[in-house]
Amino acid sequence: MCNAFNKKFIDEAAKKYEVQPEVSKACSDSDYMELAIEEAIKGMEKNEGGPFGCVIIKDGKVLGRGNNRVTSSNDPTAHAEIVAIREACANLNDFQLTGCVLYTSCEPCPMCLGAIYWARPDRVFYGCDKNDAARAGFDDHFIYEQLDAPIQDRKIPFVQIIPEKAIKSFQLWEEKENKIKY
Amino acid sequence: MCNAFNKKFIDEAAKKYEVQPEVSKACSDSDYMELAIEEAIKGMEKNEGGPFGCVIIKDGKVLGRGNNRVTSSNDPTAHAEIVAIREACANLNDFQLTGCVLYTSCEPCPMCLGAIYWARPDRVFYGCDKNDAARAGFDDHFIYEQLDAPIQDRKIPFVQIIPEKAIKSFQLWEEKENKIKY
Repeated sequence: MCNAFNKKFIDEAAKKYEVQPEVSKACSDSDYMELAIEEAIKGMEKNEGGPFGCVIIKDGKVLGRGNNRVTSSNDPTAHAEIVAIREACANLNDFQLTGCVLYTSCEPCPMCLGAIYWARPDRVFYGCDKNDAARAGFDDHFIYEQLDAPIQDRKIPFVQIIPEKAIKSFQLWEEKENKIKY
Repeated sequence: MCNAFNKKFIDEAAKKYEVQPEVSKACSDSDYMELAIEEAIKGMEKNEGGPFGCVIIKDGKVLGRGNNRVTSSNDPTAHAEIVAIREACANLNDFQLTGCVLYTSCEPCPMCLGAIYWARPDRVFYGCDKNDAARAGFDDHFIYEQLDAPIQDRKIPFVQIIPEKAIKSFQLWEEKENKIKY
């Protein structure tokens, strides 16, 4: 794997000295995917959560890393992609990942897919697919099904109440002059 | 609104003294939804993000609150529901919201819907629906469409690479003895 050792070393050093890591542009997509797989395995071995990892790269720099931390951090949203997106955005001081490429060790679940569309990286590479995930006991199929189900047929009941009061927030937003769109 | 003033007061006090707020069980779903709407409006007025709010209740206690903080925190995942889920789970020391009810000022986007299914509250109440959101400029329709699109037709390109290496993380997971399932 092209300069993986150097990359890792520079990366660790960068973390220590709080500067952005520089990674050679000569590294390939496969090399970055190997970093994502490493994150998955390291996280699982440290008992932080499931076997999922993610890295986000811009101009040859590792801007964000993540591994699944659901069970160790008691945060059901701490999937590898969400953790990496939050870190990369913090490093960029931006809520958009324009110009970034996201490498995830497994095809994203619906939550992470939604997060990816909100963050808008240029491109996504994934390793395992959702069938591999299902065979390992991580079946997102149910959630995909529920997203498509009419709201009255969902397994978690969804009930609309007082929309006439809730709409006030949107009315105020429409009138607001200094709003930042996203 | 039933004892809203007391609730707010107790809530603020609780925050100050770092104890869990107690809220009378006599409060209705509409009252809790009004709290979610309040979070939406307060957050927008403080320029933290879009006009969305959420509260999570268990046994009459407010366990989590959230408002959209995407633009102020440079976190595209900081939707009201995600913020509230993370807070409620931290308060419960659990990655599941069993026995909880989630009140959100607007029908959740695909990312938040995914997060809700991972967190598994008993029930969800929402105020505005996705058509109201679209009219106010928040159109999740595109993301729903993309979730259903075949992977090769997505607007953000998704490409599978080195699955034969990525699968190692799942093989190690299957062999792992002390894993915590979620």
